[in-house]
Amino acid sequence: MSVGNVIVGQSGGPTSVINSSLAGVFQTARDRGAGIIYGMKNGIAGFLEDRYINMADHIKTDLHIELLKRTPSAYLGSCRFKLPDIDDNEAIYSKIFQKLNNLEIKYFFYIGGNDSMDTIKKLSDYGAREGSDIRFMGVPKTIDNDLAETDHTPGYGSAAKFIATSMKEIIKDANVYGNQNIHVVEIMGRNAGWLTASAALAKREDCIGPDLIYLPELPFDTEKFLQKVGELRKEKKSIVVAVSEGLKLADGTYVCEQISSQAKFTDSFGHMTLGGTAQYLANLITAEYGCKSRAIDLSILQRCSSHIVSRVDITEAFVAGGHAVEAAFRGETAKMIIFNRVTNNPYQCTTEPYDINKIANIEKKVPLEWIINDGTYVSPEFISYANPLIQAELSPIMVGGLPSHMYN
Amino acid sequence: MSVGNVIVGQSGGPTSVINSSLAGVFQTARDRGAGIIYGMKNGIAGFLEDRYINMADHIKTDLHIELLKRTPSAYLGSCRFKLPDIDDNEAIYSKIFQKLNNLEIKYFFYIGGNDSMDTIKKLSDYGAREGSDIRFMGVPKTIDNDLAETDHTPGYGSAAKFIATSMKEIIKDANVYGNQNIHVVEIMGRNAGWLTASAALAKREDCIGPDLIYLPELPFDTEKFLQKVGELRKEKKSIVVAVSEGLKLADGTYVCEQISSQAKFTDSFGHMTLGGTAQYLANLITAEYGCKSRAIDLSILQRCSSHIVSRVDITEAFVAGGHAVEAAFRGETAKMIIFNRVTNNPYQCTTEPYDINKIANIEKKVPLEWIINDGTYVSPEFISYANPLIQAELSPIMVGGLPSHMYN
Repeated sequence: MSVGNVIVGQSGGPTSVINSSLAGVFQTARDRGAGIIYGMKNGIAGFLEDRYINMADHIKTDLHIELLKRTPSAYLGSCRFKLPDIDDNEAIYSKIFQKLNNLEIKYFFYIGGNDSMDTIKKLSDYGAREGSDIRFMGVPKTIDNDLAETDHTPGYGSAAKFIATSMKEIIKDANVYGNQNIHVVEIMGRNAGWLTASAALAKREDCIGPDLIYLPELPFDTEKFLQKVGELRKEKKSIVVAVSEGLKLADGTYVCEQISSQAKFTDSFGHMTLGGTAQYLANLITAEYGCKSRAIDLSILQRCSSHIVSRVDITEAFVAGGHAVEAAFRGETAKMIIFNRVTNNPYQCTTEPYDINKIANIEKKVPLEWIINDGTYVSPEFISYANPLIQAELSPIMVGGLPSHMYN
Repeated sequence: MSVGNVIVGQSGGPTSVINSSLAGVFQTARDRGAGIIYGMKNGIAGFLEDRYINMADHIKTDLHIELLKRTPSAYLGSCRFKLPDIDDNEAIYSKIFQKLNNLEIKYFFYIGGNDSMDTIKKLSDYGAREGSDIRFMGVPKTIDNDLAETDHTPGYGSAAKFIATSMKEIIKDANVYGNQNIHVVEIMGRNAGWLTASAALAKREDCIGPDLIYLPELPFDTEKFLQKVGELRKEKKSIVVAVSEGLKLADGTYVCEQISSQAKFTDSFGHMTLGGTAQYLANLITAEYGCKSRAIDLSILQRCSSHIVSRVDITEAFVAGGHAVEAAFRGETAKMIIFNRVTNNPYQCTTEPYDINKIANIEKKVPLEWIINDGTYVSPEFISYANPLIQAELSPIMVGGLPSHMYN
């Protein structure tokens, strides 16, 4: 006899390893005696439209599980859908629980970030109020690494590994002509600078690393930035700067808005968005110093470059999914799996189910004491923290020269 | 007794495997009895300033050779320097040959593209005129794949592999929300569309591939483009378009100039360059259809992502360097190593030293008959041609979670 039916969904922005958590949920639930394991298409939004699959119809072999782990984007599709407050719209909760009961669901897993944990919180709140015995568990996921209470989040390590690898390669390339040039590399993370900070991991015995790193935790001062670049120009030819897409001026406006607001007046189309933070700063540098400056936007490659994942990260993503299942099956609910670091060196971490109310909707930023050199670099403490998370590799399954992925 | 001293230089834009050719020259020359093997710093420009190294002082072990192969950018540094016509400035040639003779150089190798082969041509012309016994050999290199006479060029296969891999990952990511969105991916290659065409290699059993591909070989029609996107929008939610950075309108102006020329009037700095081709087209799509459109510029990652090289490519790059040495040592001069394809399937290629006069300064474009669907895709003939070049992998040497590189 089965322990009951399971449903799992993915929500929010994808990561390179969010499907490893899905694989962890599926494999663990299957091996621990789950009944039918359903997968919501496009998260709770798709479930409300009765879009779901029987996972076993798709993940049929152990090779499928290995492929799934290595597949970028969310296999089940994702959504950006925030449930209303229970008191504002009880009907939607009643509808969701009716659908869950129709499918005889006993365990509900949601893999996601801040907003997705809000979904777990609200559904478990409603369930408790109605006396439902469905268990609700969150599995952490975000490249932004901005979830509260957990040491870090699955997805961050692989994005950081891609960023650090690309920074190493860019820094090598930037030195090729021996001429004066300045590269400004734009990195994701609107409010938290964890990803931008990971550019510093490129600093190794074989790489000098980026010259300047600007996180969104501190207000950005354009004048001081240009002055800093000007000083560096006297010392070295090639300068590489890492900037967060979310840099803001002291008045609270985004640096990238400085371009967009001009564009609104000047283009003939109305809706244009002209480049981002890096492009704006590269343009400023060229205007100020008349030297070559290039903007590089790592864009969504940061969250989908599953061909170069961190083994630590993809394994932890799998474990987080598995632990969520184990905890739910023994009765836990309204919790998210968090990571507790035991030691940095050797790196050791444990996982633990943790009260969802202390996690949902809270954003964790880079501690200000880890931002050094007048806001232009990150401290050795950050390196000690982040370096273990990018370690080791999981080879892609290469077919015909390209990484192979699960598909429907 | 040695066969004589050797000098080698790298020139033009870097590739992920240009250092594999350098390793091929060095190892082969060393093993075949060369005297001192010099490396010019920053190509012929640096040599004119007496900047060179003794390679053996740096490449000391077999592990160094393996690291060198996997190191992006040009290890010796590069230059963009075109020698004047011999009759216009004989003095510079006289100076170069005096420096070569001072170092007792007998063999001169230059790893590069069109412009670099012009250097080999002119130096060998001058040498012949002066009765010099120095042998001059070119080793092909360019991600653009636009060298004449050779089936393909080292560097292209690895760039194509990175592009196809990224396209697969981007296409997966683009489908994650199931909403209407259009991604425009900008790919290098100002005049030749070989790299942009390689986006089509992403089409596999597990990936539908890009929807539209626009090469610079044909004039770009903005109206027809928007119409095509409009038709696709009726059929599918997520659309991914690959465009060459070098797309031109029928009047000969670059598509990306349409933004820049506006910017010249609108910004307050004068020197701004606002985004590129993909950004302009993404903006157009949003303006026309009011839907989300994102530009992704693969930028220099295309030429420096040595963490995911093609084994075929990096091996051929090494062989080309080695064959240049072998040929020069037995007396050949004024030639570049070319590749002759024997069969596509199984893929077989041979190398051959070929008259430099038929190669220098000539640009090879994608055959027009390989561009199909009203200029929006590439033919199966292109796939048969390009697919063998991205096959198999050479693992990076990973240290502490990141690819390791040779450094000075």
